[in-house]
Amino acid sequence: MAQKPAIPKGTRDFSPVETARRNYIFSTIRDVYALYGFRQIETPAMENLSTLMGKYGEEGDKLLFKILNSGDFTRSLPAEALASESPQRLAARLCEKGLRYDLTVPFARYVVQHRDELQLPFKRYQIQPVWRADRPQKGRYREFYQCDADVVGSDSLLNEAELVQIVDEVFSRLGIRVAVKINNRKILSGIAELIGAPEKIVDITVAIDKLDKIGPDGVQAELLASGLSAEALEQLQPILALTGTNAEKLAAMRRVLAAIPAGLKGIDEVEAVLALVEDGDGLRNAVELDLTLARGLNYYTGCIFEVKALDFPIGSIAGGGRYDNLTGIFGLPGLSGVGISFGADRIYDVLAGLDLFPASAESATQLLFINFGAAEAAHCLRLAAAMRRRGIATEVYPDAVKMKKQMAYANACGVPYVALVGADEMRDGLVSLKNMTTGEQQMLTTEAVADLLAAVAND
Amino acid sequence: MAQKPAIPKGTRDFSPVETARRNYIFSTIRDVYALYGFRQIETPAMENLSTLMGKYGEEGDKLLFKILNSGDFTRSLPAEALASESPQRLAARLCEKGLRYDLTVPFARYVVQHRDELQLPFKRYQIQPVWRADRPQKGRYREFYQCDADVVGSDSLLNEAELVQIVDEVFSRLGIRVAVKINNRKILSGIAELIGAPEKIVDITVAIDKLDKIGPDGVQAELLASGLSAEALEQLQPILALTGTNAEKLAAMRRVLAAIPAGLKGIDEVEAVLALVEDGDGLRNAVELDLTLARGLNYYTGCIFEVKALDFPIGSIAGGGRYDNLTGIFGLPGLSGVGISFGADRIYDVLAGLDLFPASAESATQLLFINFGAAEAAHCLRLAAAMRRRGIATEVYPDAVKMKKQMAYANACGVPYVALVGADEMRDGLVSLKNMTTGEQQMLTTEAVADLLAAVAND
Repeated sequence: MAQKPAIPKGTRDFSPVETARRNYIFSTIRDVYALYGFRQIETPAMENLSTLMGKYGEEGDKLLFKILNSGDFTRSLPAEALASESPQRLAARLCEKGLRYDLTVPFARYVVQHRDELQLPFKRYQIQPVWRADRPQKGRYREFYQCDADVVGSDSLLNEAELVQIVDEVFSRLGIRVAVKINNRKILSGIAELIGAPEKIVDITVAIDKLDKIGPDGVQAELLASGLSAEALEQLQPILALTGTNAEKLAAMRRVLAAIPAGLKGIDEVEAVLALVEDGDGLRNAVELDLTLARGLNYYTGCIFEVKALDFPIGSIAGGGRYDNLTGIFGLPGLSGVGISFGADRIYDVLAGLDLFPASAESATQLLFINFGAAEAAHCLRLAAAMRRRGIATEVYPDAVKMKKQMAYANACGVPYVALVGADEMRDGLVSLKNMTTGEQQMLTTEAVADLLAAVAND
Repeated sequence: MAQKPAIPKGTRDFSPVETARRNYIFSTIRDVYALYGFRQIETPAMENLSTLMGKYGEEGDKLLFKILNSGDFTRSLPAEALASESPQRLAARLCEKGLRYDLTVPFARYVVQHRDELQLPFKRYQIQPVWRADRPQKGRYREFYQCDADVVGSDSLLNEAELVQIVDEVFSRLGIRVAVKINNRKILSGIAELIGAPEKIVDITVAIDKLDKIGPDGVQAELLASGLSAEALEQLQPILALTGTNAEKLAAMRRVLAAIPAGLKGIDEVEAVLALVEDGDGLRNAVELDLTLARGLNYYTGCIFEVKALDFPIGSIAGGGRYDNLTGIFGLPGLSGVGISFGADRIYDVLAGLDLFPASAESATQLLFINFGAAEAAHCLRLAAAMRRRGIATEVYPDAVKMKKQMAYANACGVPYVALVGADEMRDGLVSLKNMTTGEQQMLTTEAVADLLAAVAND
């Protein structure tokens, strides 16, 4: 036999069980987004490279998958260009399109392109794959889904509050206990201003972001290397070591940043969001002010969020924040936005690791009719039609092969009930129903079988 | 302002309303597939070009979107290769991966790659986009979804019968009246043998496939041009003009092909499938034997299907058939398969053209709370949480802007009910609920609002 075919490295096939489990995650997120009035859009997998290039930094540009122009793509190219240009410049001549790298830039492009049709604020969600030519490794893929919700065109902190509620609701429905970390980029800017190094804000947030990984000493070393003075570093220490309740931390920070208006505004924003979500019915998961939370992406300008699973060791499983000028890159300035994104692959790992996938996320067929021959199968096809009218997912084994093989199929596919209808049952108008879990077998009318399975399905 | 950004030609953005309508089609198909025990898989957008090339004919190879190799893709290329090779050969050196062209070849690749994990028969469905570098034109896109279900590893005609039932069920649920055309490739081979030109089967089926478009004279001219004798053509005439019920047509064909065993087998197969689907409860749509049905793809070997909408002029909206050796191309011969595919874009056009999309496929938010200021909004956020716990999709307008703007938002988003909760309503614990369709306004308790909207949603 020929060598087995394969798929490109970093990509994945999803089996029926994996696909059903992934759909369970996607539909939980989708249901909650819709419950909060977000509306789904879809954008093409391919975008013009002019849309994508320069939006993700130099590293990001290198990770874009580029699509070779169709037809005689070399025609307009002088031979010497082919032979002498750098790969980057040559790629730009060979390719006009690329695969989307995330959902945020296509969303910004969508808002600008369709601005005349949109009613602001625009609350959209989008669940689609993205592609990155990253070096594949455990947990990092070249094709993966993002599940984003964003509101553009509203400065109100109600949006931030609702996004926190959405996070709380999604993980409650999935049964994952989480901590929602909140911070604000304006507080971080305030800190940078306080220590007299406002131009160092990027270095500081990137370094603070690594606190978990490299520890306070590592962060200190990194900041010194970036040119921060020892005196400035000294002032950072108490801020990184802050403890207590959210209210205590906010009060302490208010004193530290008393002379920095931007920093105080950040504190006000966090306080307002916490008041909105803790008011009234409250949340099932804790929201914690975490001043070490910085998030890598530098377009955030206000509140930022990150979600950690409490019972499973893994990186953040959701995150987001406020950005003030996303559509500016496409010529439409002044639109503020705030969004959240769920990491479906990591959520999958948490649910699998904690054994939290419900059985309903995996089972497909509820009833299989065994095939005893042409006449019996034709009869069973009618019974199956009656079951399906009751909403019961039903199969008739297509071939009259050995019973053992048919039962093996039922087991392999996780079918919970098998119906045996031979000549006797046909004559008597009955079904011999076998429970594949208990092994118990009963003789029932078709109606009784449908009633039993409909009840099981609604359990 | 800068020039509006755009998307690559032949691709599409889908607005919230379009996405909701498309999801209605996909979920209808998905529900029916699952009801018949098909299980969903997903495969990567990118496949190795070695998997894709040579599977769709020379024309198909040209329509594959190819992905430029990452990194220094020219390194291993001699400069003279770049300058002198044909575009096809150069593309093969620059690209190892391509975007999938359909779902059938990736499925065959999946079955062979995962054959040790699969329990046969394998009933899978797959709903994913495919990409073709076709010249864009009305109704033809470079990115579009396919919705395929296939059974591999079973020769039984029960599968064909169930696929016809699935087609009947899907279009019944969508409210589209259809005719299901059925034919069999073995009957067509029998005809070719009868007229003494078995090697002409491809030409004959391709020409017959065009009967609707170019008429009998056109087909005749095309077949003469392909080298068929005038005598052979003469024998084709009565077959193309066959009329009557399915039973009458089959009886007539049985006489015509009496000496051709392969042709008789095809007639037996069609007869068996018709008996299975017409038996018992029957179908809501007619199944018609149509000897002019040939379908373009030459890998079909048994029954073939095509579905036409009765009340809207458009090409076939679903189709499929039996193929005997799909996985042979990947080194696993002898596995028979049969499948069906729904054309989501055309189904969308039919539903839109006949105004058949249900309102539930479009409405998202059921209730919008008007924002009268910070205190009222915080109060409304609690009421909104109560509504959402009852499953009612609810929004709180995030900004305390002019009432007119908030009502315009409700109208633009098609929100059916608006809640006005000002200082008086807050004090009295009531909600003033406005029906946006009738303009009617009522003062109600929160409970009463939830009851009313839950009842509307379940209507």
